[in-house]
Amino acid sequence: MITLLTDFGLKDEYVGVMKGVILSIAPKALLVDLSHEIPPGDIRQAGWLLSWAWSYFPRGTVHLVVVDPGVGSDRRILCFAYRGHLFLAPDNGVLSLLLRTLKHPRLYAVTNQRYALRPIAHTFQGRDIFAPVAAYLSKGLSPSRLGPRVSRWRHLAFPRAVQNRQGDWKGQIIQIDRFGNAMTNLPALALSPRPRKVFSPFRLRVKGRRLEIKRSYQMAGKSKAVAIPNSRGLLEIAVQGGSASQRLGLKISDPVLLSTVAT
Amino acid sequence: MITLLTDFGLKDEYVGVMKGVILSIAPKALLVDLSHEIPPGDIRQAGWLLSWAWSYFPRGTVHLVVVDPGVGSDRRILCFAYRGHLFLAPDNGVLSLLLRTLKHPRLYAVTNQRYALRPIAHTFQGRDIFAPVAAYLSKGLSPSRLGPRVSRWRHLAFPRAVQNRQGDWKGQIIQIDRFGNAMTNLPALALSPRPRKVFSPFRLRVKGRRLEIKRSYQMAGKSKAVAIPNSRGLLEIAVQGGSASQRLGLKISDPVLLSTVAT
Amino acid sequence: MITLLTDFGLKDEYVGVMKGVILSIAPKALLVDLSHEIPPGDIRQAGWLLSWAWSYFPRGTVHLVVVDPGVGSDRRILCFAYRGHLFLAPDNGVLSLLLRTLKHPRLYAVTNQRYALRPIAHTFQGRDIFAPVAAYLSKGLSPSRLGPRVSRWRHLAFPRAVQNRQGDWKGQIIQIDRFGNAMTNLPALALSPRPRKVFSPFRLRVKGRRLEIKRSYQMAGKSKAVAIPNSRGLLEIAVQGGSASQRLGLKISDPVLLSTVAT
Repeated sequence: MITLLTDFGLKDEYVGVMKGVILSIAPKALLVDLSHEIPPGDIRQAGWLLSWAWSYFPRGTVHLVVVDPGVGSDRRILCFAYRGHLFLAPDNGVLSLLLRTLKHPRLYAVTNQRYALRPIAHTFQGRDIFAPVAAYLSKGLSPSRLGPRVSRWRHLAFPRAVQNRQGDWKGQIIQIDRFGNAMTNLPALALSPRPRKVFSPFRLRVKGRRLEIKRSYQMAGKSKAVAIPNSRGLLEIAVQGGSASQRLGLKISDPVLLSTVAT
Repeated sequence: MITLLTDFGLKDEYVGVMKGVILSIAPKALLVDLSHEIPPGDIRQAGWLLSWAWSYFPRGTVHLVVVDPGVGSDRRILCFAYRGHLFLAPDNGVLSLLLRTLKHPRLYAVTNQRYALRPIAHTFQGRDIFAPVAAYLSKGLSPSRLGPRVSRWRHLAFPRAVQNRQGDWKGQIIQIDRFGNAMTNLPALALSPRPRKVFSPFRLRVKGRRLEIKRSYQMAGKSKAVAIPNSRGLLEIAVQGGSASQRLGLKISDPVLLSTVAT
Repeated sequence: MITLLTDFGLKDEYVGVMKGVILSIAPKALLVDLSHEIPPGDIRQAGWLLSWAWSYFPRGTVHLVVVDPGVGSDRRILCFAYRGHLFLAPDNGVLSLLLRTLKHPRLYAVTNQRYALRPIAHTFQGRDIFAPVAAYLSKGLSPSRLGPRVSRWRHLAFPRAVQNRQGDWKGQIIQIDRFGNAMTNLPALALSPRPRKVFSPFRLRVKGRRLEIKRSYQMAGKSKAVAIPNSRGLLEIAVQGGSASQRLGLKISDPVLLSTVAT
C-alpha cells in the first residue's frame, strides 16, 4: 500500500501521472490519497497531516510525501522506516515531527538514480523520482539500496504547547479543517490527570474569549463556541453546526491558553 | 466493494484515514468515492445523492454514509440490507428516502463495540466505528451481528412533487450540480402517458418564466433555458453551455410547476 | 487499467456512478483519475491534459475522456488504439492533438448498442455508454467490435508555436496550473541546438516583460518571474513560491515570444 500526500491539487494531471508511473512499476500497489489539497508549498501543514494519519494504515505501507518547494535544487530526498512503515519525502522539514521522536533513525538519502525515470525533470520529481522509488519500495526494495545512510536532516519548527509554572498550557492554532474547526497544539492529555469527564474547571482562552471544554459537538449547545478533545488527541475549537474559524475570526498561529477557572 | 459518501472534503486527512482503517481490516476491499463534497452537515443532499447512485453498483456493495452532524451524541447508527446492497449510516434521516419505499426493513442498530476501534473519539466516529464496521461487512459480517433489530428510525422530509386536480405537477428545486443545472423533484414520468418524445404541450414554470421541455441540452438552442428529463429520472433546468442556476438565479427550494400549455 | 478524465467535478455522484458501472462489468479494473476538474465543456484543456498524461501509464491502459458538451446530440463516439493504449472519447476534437500525429489511425465509431446500459440517457452518456464500453475494452474487447471503421474526425485547433525567419518562436499561454504556473506551447526543444544548459541568450517576452530562462524554480531567485523548461517538455512561466499567473496577470491565450537577446 502507498499513501500519497501532495500539494498538487486535483485539477492538473500531476497526481494521475504519478499513479500511472507507480502502477507501471508495481501494478498491484494499492494507492490511497491522504490529501492533495495542501496549500502550495506548505510544508508544515503536510507534516501535521502526515503525523495524524500514518498510523491508521497497515504495517508495510509506504507513505509518499511530495510537498516540495525546493524541487530542482540540491535538497535531498529522504527515506526511513518507522514501526514497519516506510516514509519517503523531500528533506525540507516535512518529516521533522516524526523524526524528533526517534533516537537514531536509520535515514537514507535517495541518490541511486537506478530507480528514477530518465531524464529527470527539474520541475516534477514527484513523477521522475518519488513515484518510481515508492513503487519499488512497495515491492520490497530496502531503503538502504537507495543511497547512503545519513545522520542529519533539515529541521522545521512545529510549534509545541508548553506548560508554565502555574500549570497553564500555552499553545496556538495549527490548522483549520473543512468544517472551520480550529485545531490547537494543546494535547487533550492536558486535561488530565483529572478524571476525563470532568472538564469543568478548565477554560480555553482565545481572542479574548473564554471557552468551556465539552466532550462533543452536541454538548456544545447550538452556535456556542467550545473546545473539544478531538480525534487527533488535540483540543480543537468548534461551533456546532457552524464554522468556529469564521465565527471567532481564528487563523493559524493565533495563541491559545488552557487554564483552570481559578487562574 | 465499499462506497464512501461524506461531508469531509478532501483537504484534511479524514477520508484517507477512514480508508486506512478499512484496508487494515479488509485489504481486498475495493473503495469507491461517491462524494466527499456534501456541504457540511447537509443530510438531505447526501440522501438525494445516495438515492441516485447506489443502484449502479454491484450487488454486495456496502454503502457507507458519514454525514453526521450528531456525532458524539446518542444518535444511533443504522445498518440494513436492500436488494443485495448494505447501507451503513447515522440515524439522522439520511436513509429516509430509501427506507420510505420499504414495508418492513430489517434494520439493525450498531451497538456491538467489538467491531470498533478503541477508544472511540467523540468527534470522528467515521474512523472509529463506521470505517471498521463497513470493513467487516464487506468481509461478510451479517448486519444482525452489529446490534439489536429496531423498527423505528429518524424521518427526514425529502420534498415530493405532487399532482393537483388539474393534472399539473408542483415541485421544487432540490439540487444544483457542478454545471449549474438545477434538479427538480418532478419525475420525468410526469411527461407520460403522452408519447415520450412529444413534450410540446408541457411547460415548466420557474421564477416567472415558462420553459419548454427538450430531450437534450443540444436541442435547447444556445443559451436558452429549458427543462430536460435527466439521467436521474427527474426534470432538470439547464442552459446549453452555461449555468442555469446563475442565469435564472435559481436556488434549492425554489418552487416549480409543470403544466400543459392550455393551463 | 482505465484512466478517467472528465469535467464532472467531485461534488456530484457522476464520477462515482461511472465507476460503479465499470466495476459492475469489470470488477478487476484498476481505475485512476486523471482529473475531473476540467472547466465545464472545455474540450481543449482536456485535450492538452490527456496529451501530457497518457504515456505514463502501462500499455493496455484504456483512457476514457468524457468532456462532452454535445451529449445527446448526434456527435459520434470514437475509439482507437495507439502504441498499445486505447482511447475512448466523444468526437468533438478532444483527440485532435493525438490524432494529428498519426498517419492512418484505425478509428472506430461506437454504434453497437450491445455494450451500453439501457435506456440511454440523453444527458449522461458517460454512465450509459462510455463507462460500460470502457469496461468491456479493459476486458479485452476489440475496438473493431464497437462499430464501423471511420476515416474522418472532428478537428479542433490546438495552437502550435511557430518559428519565424529570424528564428524566434511565437506561441501562447495554453494552461494555468494549480500553482499559478503558466504553461506556454513553446517546446523546450526551442532552446536547442544550443547546449541545454546555456540558456543565457534567450528571453521570453510576455506582457511587455522579458523573462530569463532558468533550469529550475530554485534558480529563479525569490519572487522573480522566469521561464523554465518543464516536465511536459514545454516552457512555463513561474515565480518561485508564488503564482506567476497572478503576479503578471497572465491568462490563457496571452501571446509569448522566445527570442535571443540580440533580437
